[in-house]
Amino acid sequence: MSESPSFAGRDIVSIRDFSRKEIDHILDMAEVMEPLAKKGSDMLHGRIMATLFYEASTRTRLSFESAITRLGGTALGFAETKGTSVEKGENLADTVRVTEKYADVLVVRHPLEGAARMAAEFASVPVINAGSGAEEHPTQALLDLYTIRKELGTIDGLTIGLIGDLRYGRTVHSLAYALSLYKVKLVLISPDILQMRKEVAEEVSKKIEVTETPSLKDHLRELDVIYMTRVQKERFADLQDYEKVKGSYRLVAEDLDKTKKSSIVMHPLPRVDEVDPGVDSTPHAKYFQQVGNGVVLRMGLLGLVLGAL
Amino acid sequence: MSESPSFAGRDIVSIRDFSRKEIDHILDMAEVMEPLAKKGSDMLHGRIMATLFYEASTRTRLSFESAITRLGGTALGFAETKGTSVEKGENLADTVRVTEKYADVLVVRHPLEGAARMAAEFASVPVINAGSGAEEHPTQALLDLYTIRKELGTIDGLTIGLIGDLRYGRTVHSLAYALSLYKVKLVLISPDILQMRKEVAEEVSKKIEVTETPSLKDHLRELDVIYMTRVQKERFADLQDYEKVKGSYRLVAEDLDKTKKSSIVMHPLPRVDEVDPGVDSTPHAKYFQQVGNGVVLRMGLLGLVLGAL
Amino acid sequence: MSESPSFAGRDIVSIRDFSRKEIDHILDMAEVMEPLAKKGSDMLHGRIMATLFYEASTRTRLSFESAITRLGGTALGFAETKGTSVEKGENLADTVRVTEKYADVLVVRHPLEGAARMAAEFASVPVINAGSGAEEHPTQALLDLYTIRKELGTIDGLTIGLIGDLRYGRTVHSLAYALSLYKVKLVLISPDILQMRKEVAEEVSKKIEVTETPSLKDHLRELDVIYMTRVQKERFADLQDYEKVKGSYRLVAEDLDKTKKSSIVMHPLPRVDEVDPGVDSTPHAKYFQQVGNGVVLRMGLLGLVLGAL
Repeated sequence: MSESPSFAGRDIVSIRDFSRKEIDHILDMAEVMEPLAKKGSDMLHGRIMATLFYEASTRTRLSFESAITRLGGTALGFAETKGTSVEKGENLADTVRVTEKYADVLVVRHPLEGAARMAAEFASVPVINAGSGAEEHPTQALLDLYTIRKELGTIDGLTIGLIGDLRYGRTVHSLAYALSLYKVKLVLISPDILQMRKEVAEEVSKKIEVTETPSLKDHLRELDVIYMTRVQKERFADLQDYEKVKGSYRLVAEDLDKTKKSSIVMHPLPRVDEVDPGVDSTPHAKYFQQVGNGVVLRMGLLGLVLGAL
Repeated sequence: MSESPSFAGRDIVSIRDFSRKEIDHILDMAEVMEPLAKKGSDMLHGRIMATLFYEASTRTRLSFESAITRLGGTALGFAETKGTSVEKGENLADTVRVTEKYADVLVVRHPLEGAARMAAEFASVPVINAGSGAEEHPTQALLDLYTIRKELGTIDGLTIGLIGDLRYGRTVHSLAYALSLYKVKLVLISPDILQMRKEVAEEVSKKIEVTETPSLKDHLRELDVIYMTRVQKERFADLQDYEKVKGSYRLVAEDLDKTKKSSIVMHPLPRVDEVDPGVDSTPHAKYFQQVGNGVVLRMGLLGLVLGAL
Repeated sequence: MSESPSFAGRDIVSIRDFSRKEIDHILDMAEVMEPLAKKGSDMLHGRIMATLFYEASTRTRLSFESAITRLGGTALGFAETKGTSVEKGENLADTVRVTEKYADVLVVRHPLEGAARMAAEFASVPVINAGSGAEEHPTQALLDLYTIRKELGTIDGLTIGLIGDLRYGRTVHSLAYALSLYKVKLVLISPDILQMRKEVAEEVSKKIEVTETPSLKDHLRELDVIYMTRVQKERFADLQDYEKVKGSYRLVAEDLDKTKKSSIVMHPLPRVDEVDPGVDSTPHAKYFQQVGNGVVLRMGLLGLVLGAL
């Protein structure tokens, strides 16, 4: 098949719903969006995106709002459930069937796994999952792939380290699944109690080489992509355990002297102190670029599911 | 008079401010909006609608926002009073005279009766009441009328049942007043303690035939419109009373086997369990259509008061 | 130099960053915006303004939103820090470097002095200070100047009284600095414990004639501009002290019989009871006009820093 996959009307619920070919097409479309993110476009003029955020996330919400706005469309919705009909006891299925009357596409964020899938089943307009439960955050995984490809020219052939909390972070789960479609080596670096969920590690291991290790130091040198995440104090029952591991998953500028010259440091943000501000001014730091890439990636997705691309 | 009534600059405070002729004209304009709700329009390009919501209501707010957006205009405002100058002690008159500098039309929701009227008196731009106190919710009444007319071809000649909490629901009060302008039979079905307010029932009875009854079962068969509302537990001093009546004001799919083939089930939403999900897939269910009708109705109203129609 | 000062890409952090010539140019541009505030414009079509409000302020936020909208642009952002990544411990520098990817200009409101300055240092897009700490609120000062010039034809030559809480109100600090660039007499009228901050009074006194007094009555007659502010009960340790001074800083319609015919009453709003509603209908009252002037002033600023003017 040489034609591009069709996305019009399609839901974006899980990264696992997509083939490599489809993902590559999404990344290509993000690239097409780069100039439009600068000068604006009327591609989605008159189209409405509703954000249904059952869990607050300013960053993801603003990224989607910026994306639809850059394409000439409009955002509306709710940023938290306080004061909504959800508080009056309305279920997700009803909320979806109501809000789809106000909009052409729904962007859903929900604390429960499966919520975005359920929303997609009830909606007659496309649904985009902006994070559901601890497992899925497909648009973050896509923007991460896009950043790697844009910065390093390719994804195939790279050695990619995911570092920190691999157990509770939905970002790294979606990203690991996505990376397993490429020819990469994955190094999963975390304290024991924050190891990658078994089901994710096992499924990914079937397709690509995966190394699990508690040591960032031992592996820094070989990584093309250093993907940092927050290690949250609240995850540790014993605060002493936390203090013990904390320093090992923290990156400072000097650490990068020992890495490949072309290595890039990524982070889904917000960071607290796992990436020292000293790293910001090194050429390795790409986490703020990730944010901009998130906008063009979401522009591409909106253009695709609304049939404008 | 054969010309259409003029609405430019007019306030929409109470359904009782309008003649039948005027209401019919509003419904006609909503019909005109149907195609524009699909393909969008620039009819209100550059116009701003401010939402002043002193009481949270995501649904009504989003419906208005969707309406102004579909017509090319923009919404701004506040969704709750937290963090607003209202908290600093500002009165409604001042807030209105300030916010009218930011917008071309004000949409006001307020917990107190008379608030929308007062806002309209101080504002030099049109004010639309999006619900005030327990008595008025004119745009909901209008979208209900529009739904009936659209689904059944006419309002005159119908038998319409309002069911559930007829005492505290502002929706049914505005709707009863509106229906009294048409040639309908009204059946008011509620537990004794939630009977329609005396002043509403009396005024409406002067114009049309009204039956008050506690039994939904006895009347289902004759109804063209089955307008359900929530019976809220909090309204009952004695929880046993609530448990007793609860089941009687609940609709399941089987109930509809005994109704007229053309009967429609409406609900202002959100529902909790007074309309069983089993009803959703029957051809009687029109409550989600009501939501879409709310958008076109509000498009029509905005177009009218802003002088674009 | 006869050419106009260049503002494209510039930050608006403190009124003290601007010369009189620059301020006059900003006021000229606000004037140019007057017709566009009525009929709208597409001058900033496709441009995005992000509002980062670390401190709630509906009025200022809506004024900026109305301004960008009247020029065809779009607003997004957050109105309070609840639910934002700020709550997760993100610092201002990171939030700025993230949100600038979503927008072409940042409008920042923050409870800490220096916050807007810091934001401007980290941002690569222009930053406009919408109030930071107790010291700076440059856009309010500019709209106040604009109101004086519009209503009285000039600023030079006037006697201007700032009345009420001159200690904690950032509005009067920025305004005093701004006025010191003009040939005005300043009369600072406040109870002793709410006197103008020493550093402000001293700096301003170097440039213009300043009188400090506790008596509004003694000076009303000579004022061209009666700039009222709220005296907040919370500022007084002893409630009896508050009750004592309260009445002296309250304006009623009769007070204005003794003032110059052309004198104008201004107030940054919201007021509580320091300006009696009876004043509203006198020709002296200009506080609601100030609000509308705030929109055109901000339109001018946005047009300038985004390089459209």
